[in-house]
Amino acid sequence: MTNNRFLIEPIGVIRSPVKDVADAPKQGREGQVEGRLEIEERYRDAISGIRPGQRITILYWLHNADRSRLKVHPRGDLSLPLKGVFATRSPHRPNPIAVDEVRVTAIDGNTIHVQGIDAIDGTPLLDIKCYLKK
Amino acid sequence: MTNNRFLIEPIGVIRSPVKDVADAPKQGREGQVEGRLEIEERYRDAISGIRPGQRITILYWLHNADRSRLKVHPRGDLSLPLKGVFATRSPHRPNPIAVDEVRVTAIDGNTIHVQGIDAIDGTPLLDIKCYLKK
Repeated sequence: MTNNRFLIEPIGVIRSPVKDVADAPKQGREGQVEGRLEIEERYRDAISGIRPGQRITILYWLHNADRSRLKVHPRGDLSLPLKGVFATRSPHRPNPIAVDEVRVTAIDGNTIHVQGIDAIDGTPLLDIKCYLKK
Repeated sequence: MTNNRFLIEPIGVIRSPVKDVADAPKQGREGQVEGRLEIEERYRDAISGIRPGQRITILYWLHNADRSRLKVHPRGDLSLPLKGVFATRSPHRPNPIAVDEVRVTAIDGNTIHVQGIDAIDGTPLLDIKCYLKK
């Protein structure tokens, strides 16, 4: 139906005290983890206008995902019946891009300090958008 | 800082009565446009569990975006000062991936009928997630 392919390059990297998937907070459950978005120098101009206190939407690449998985047990709970990955928020999916909302606490050069991060340390950051509640 | 690159392939295509960017509703402003998500046959198993009435998050590729643009006039309003693209929701950004919430109205084989679509007809669909309010 479609035969296009798109190449994406990280705009930076996420720094978090959480080093391992097993320790990562479940999305939306815990919102207090503090981390940093280290933006590449070539994208410095693109972060101008982001202010402390603001909420931002971040997109990142789930580099540990299994992209071939089409069904999962929701929330990794084996007692729940298998469900299509598109009906869940599993990290395993054909294009493993996560969407999360975080709060900006400070900006220091190319580094954006944030609160409420769910990603593990070293996660490739793909995009930042101003937050919009629909 | 990072030198990884990732390849993404659409999981399907968005069908919408809106054929042109100039006619597209502004994100979050109008929520009644009805459209369809046509999912590729090979991903049929991945949509099992999606139900009518449900809200879903969709990710799609803004194929008309200028990926080299680092600053824009917010909302295309030339009277507003230039702002970094990461401080806006401009379609122009290094990795032009849009995030939107839509409501499922019906499912018919590989086709998911939705309400509240902002994308134009023919937009490559990248991902579907169950909606989570954080």
